[in-house]
Amino acid sequence: MTDKKWRTAISTFDDDGASIGGYQIQDLMENLDFGAAMFVLYQQRVPSKEEAKLLNALMVSVIDHGIVAPSAVSRIVAASGVPLQACVAAGILTIGDVHGGAGQEIARKLQIWVEEAKAAGQSLADKARAIVADSRKAKERIEGYGHPLHPHRDDRVDCLVKMAGELGLRGDNLNLALAIQDAIEEATGRHIPLNIDGIMAAVLCDLGFDWRVARVFIFVPRAAGISAHAVEEVKRERGWRKIANHDEVEYDGPTGRTVGEAAE
Amino acid sequence: MTDKKWRTAISTFDDDGASIGGYQIQDLMENLDFGAAMFVLYQQRVPSKEEAKLLNALMVSVIDHGIVAPSAVSRIVAASGVPLQACVAAGILTIGDVHGGAGQEIARKLQIWVEEAKAAGQSLADKARAIVADSRKAKERIEGYGHPLHPHRDDRVDCLVKMAGELGLRGDNLNLALAIQDAIEEATGRHIPLNIDGIMAAVLCDLGFDWRVARVFIFVPRAAGISAHAVEEVKRERGWRKIANHDEVEYDGPTGRTVGEAAE
Amino acid sequence: MTDKKWRTAISTFDDDGASIGGYQIQDLMENLDFGAAMFVLYQQRVPSKEEAKLLNALMVSVIDHGIVAPSAVSRIVAASGVPLQACVAAGILTIGDVHGGAGQEIARKLQIWVEEAKAAGQSLADKARAIVADSRKAKERIEGYGHPLHPHRDDRVDCLVKMAGELGLRGDNLNLALAIQDAIEEATGRHIPLNIDGIMAAVLCDLGFDWRVARVFIFVPRAAGISAHAVEEVKRERGWRKIANHDEVEYDGPTGRTVGEAAE
Amino acid sequence: MTDKKWRTAISTFDDDGASIGGYQIQDLMENLDFGAAMFVLYQQRVPSKEEAKLLNALMVSVIDHGIVAPSAVSRIVAASGVPLQACVAAGILTIGDVHGGAGQEIARKLQIWVEEAKAAGQSLADKARAIVADSRKAKERIEGYGHPLHPHRDDRVDCLVKMAGELGLRGDNLNLALAIQDAIEEATGRHIPLNIDGIMAAVLCDLGFDWRVARVFIFVPRAAGISAHAVEEVKRERGWRKIANHDEVEYDGPTGRTVGEAAE
Repeated sequence: MTDKKWRTAISTFDDDGASIGGYQIQDLMENLDFGAAMFVLYQQRVPSKEEAKLLNALMVSVIDHGIVAPSAVSRIVAASGVPLQACVAAGILTIGDVHGGAGQEIARKLQIWVEEAKAAGQSLADKARAIVADSRKAKERIEGYGHPLHPHRDDRVDCLVKMAGELGLRGDNLNLALAIQDAIEEATGRHIPLNIDGIMAAVLCDLGFDWRVARVFIFVPRAAGISAHAVEEVKRERGWRKIANHDEVEYDGPTGRTVGEAAE
Repeated sequence: MTDKKWRTAISTFDDDGASIGGYQIQDLMENLDFGAAMFVLYQQRVPSKEEAKLLNALMVSVIDHGIVAPSAVSRIVAASGVPLQACVAAGILTIGDVHGGAGQEIARKLQIWVEEAKAAGQSLADKARAIVADSRKAKERIEGYGHPLHPHRDDRVDCLVKMAGELGLRGDNLNLALAIQDAIEEATGRHIPLNIDGIMAAVLCDLGFDWRVARVFIFVPRAAGISAHAVEEVKRERGWRKIANHDEVEYDGPTGRTVGEAAE
Repeated sequence: MTDKKWRTAISTFDDDGASIGGYQIQDLMENLDFGAAMFVLYQQRVPSKEEAKLLNALMVSVIDHGIVAPSAVSRIVAASGVPLQACVAAGILTIGDVHGGAGQEIARKLQIWVEEAKAAGQSLADKARAIVADSRKAKERIEGYGHPLHPHRDDRVDCLVKMAGELGLRGDNLNLALAIQDAIEEATGRHIPLNIDGIMAAVLCDLGFDWRVARVFIFVPRAAGISAHAVEEVKRERGWRKIANHDEVEYDGPTGRTVGEAAE
Repeated sequence: MTDKKWRTAISTFDDDGASIGGYQIQDLMENLDFGAAMFVLYQQRVPSKEEAKLLNALMVSVIDHGIVAPSAVSRIVAASGVPLQACVAAGILTIGDVHGGAGQEIARKLQIWVEEAKAAGQSLADKARAIVADSRKAKERIEGYGHPLHPHRDDRVDCLVKMAGELGLRGDNLNLALAIQDAIEEATGRHIPLNIDGIMAAVLCDLGFDWRVARVFIFVPRAAGISAHAVEEVKRERGWRKIANHDEVEYDGPTGRTVGEAAE
């Protein structure tokens, strides 16, 4: 345990006002939208109009997605008589390594692979083939491809690819991610499309974000959707509703024992 | 416990894509910024440019604010070796009724008071004087005025008041909130300015939001700041740092007893 | 915001060791079971053997209860690739005012009613009849009676009533709670049994606990069950399972709109 | 995403009552204390009296420990106007890999090392020397030794070692853990004592628990302490207190920039 003073480079405030990354907060309020302000918060620079547009689109793409894990949890908690911020906290906890959080690992690897390709003077297409060959040899799945709910196509992904191109922001990370998609199809004969975690990781890397923050751009926007579900639950439903109801749950553990017989 | 099917009017998805409030998600991605998409999520209509601008500014105003309760909690949790979403969940839990969450109650009351004034044909200035007189008689504080960290002036508040005016979005709720500020000064001789919870409540009401969602527009943007603090903690610091360290904590409970003597 | 030093009367530690409520921790470890140690933590005195036995039984009664809200949430979070403590945190958030947390309000009222009966020199049976009559007039349900999953009888409740009697710990609060059950039957002809929240509230009050801590004796023991479900989920299942699956969710919001037409 | 029915082997209930691991809940309530019931929950068998005594002592040892990370977080959240279960959820989130949660990894390694020693016909003392030599070569710290707040001695550890011996429950895992402590001293000349995470891991392994559940026996008991702090905060203090106050926080990020100049 160290005794050092707490310190931060993110934001500060005093009697003369508050600032984020060195910008007066009013300056940000008057001149930036929320996506652009998040860019400043994480990169300490103001994004171009194109960068801000792409980052906003990426955030909008995951703002809500029906009743899946985060919103289901939020609704169950809301039905228990709990304030809104607690429902959202529970929902955000589900953005783990399986869904949502997966983007962090994909982003980390994309940045490494792009560096490796550059250092080796290798084309991204060749790098992609090598990555797919390695993963097949190791019998390991490459994360970021395929989605149980969107097996063939995910409009959100197609839209982000298109927008990145139109805005002149398609960089090495997205190019490699798409080259891997092609290499998988080449090697297996199956089209397994880049999924939403994968495209977000690639776009965030191309926009210059640290891979550690990939999941932030899922759970901040999704917090809006998670809250909306909690509010709807409270306004529309009453009390304690069936989830996977207890009588739909199969019990397959031991039965019929007593403490008495175990103690003998 | 009811057996009804789960149902929702917020969003849906199928093989043909996903939609929010009836809008294809790509449509929202290509045409709206994140603040505007939140407007759609909560009001099921696309905001005007002015409404979107004001809502984004409001969200930017609370995106971060140094190391106070939400970010302090997030950093302590982050220092404990915990994934990012859990740090943010803990931070969001602090947006309770004392700070941040207070806006919900203010919004609820503003909507009631505005209705009462209209029904009674009373001017907002007169209504404000009556509200202040009532609160003084009941010796109760009107929430939404005064801030321990910004006693004299909060630039974020001034900026939102100015923007609401310039964008033509200053409505009855904000007018009443400012009239109450004047009435407090008139009655007490003290200028106790509208605080950030108060201005947010007033602006959100004027923008047509349900009072139940006032705190959503604090914790969604602040989730971005809370995450930034957790990431900074992990990148900059190592291990377990002193908080309010145990040796700064005064112990004033009983001492020197034993189980033996209590049992006799 | 006050500047006062943090202070606590609960526990402390220094180079000579740690203590809870003034007892050396080794003393508690060697001489008390966990239920008794919780008694010390909350009442700063060592319970009698009978008190410890009843408190342990009360805690065991709610250690787990199949897959209902807290464990369902824990399992969904666990399936998302999240560490154990976060699964449990999410599960505990469901111990809100609807189930589990209800005991707090019941305990508060029982303590008031017992005081009122004493002050008025009224028998508990008469007080119970008056309470039931008042609730019927106000058309308000008395909390703590009836359980959606156990409409006729809950063995846990019967067992706690029996044990409280056998251990000589049946006091005014439990007697009043049972008198209310009789008075409801007398007034309505229906047997609506004291439920688990109700019995716990009554027993905790008779054991001398503050009503504010009633739900602690639900969520501390249930944390054990919630964890067990998270561990089982991770060990037995793989990846992301269906909850209330999206295609079982009925969507009844607007459809087929575009941003373009809204903007016109 | 699989469609399989939810299933569990932990507990069940129907109209004839509830059971845990096959035992009627009343049977457990009447015959076991809370620690013993947790044993049943996780091992599906009733512990001996000695096993129950040791497990209870282990749980009592961590029931509270002054104002450190979990209780500090709980108090900050409590001061924000948040219900008790949410304060505890936030506190539990801090039981991460750094403190508390570390026991899981230690338990996993101890079980492997004991197996390796047995398979190789190696004495635990020799195995310990080999482990310490390997860690010194790799310049890696062996987790479970040394504590920033208790550098020389932790009474809780000494007490558990003594009780395990007296109860006839000192097994290979604890013996190896203590042999490693000796081997560290032999190799470095420094006495770095087994810490609370280490002793808990060793005792839980000797009691037959899965290493995955080591941290459960921290956060379930500590939930009691975390709650006690939240309750004390609300009863004793008012409103929003200083933590590491903003004016004690050093800001060392960029200053004085404007959006205007960045856009040029």
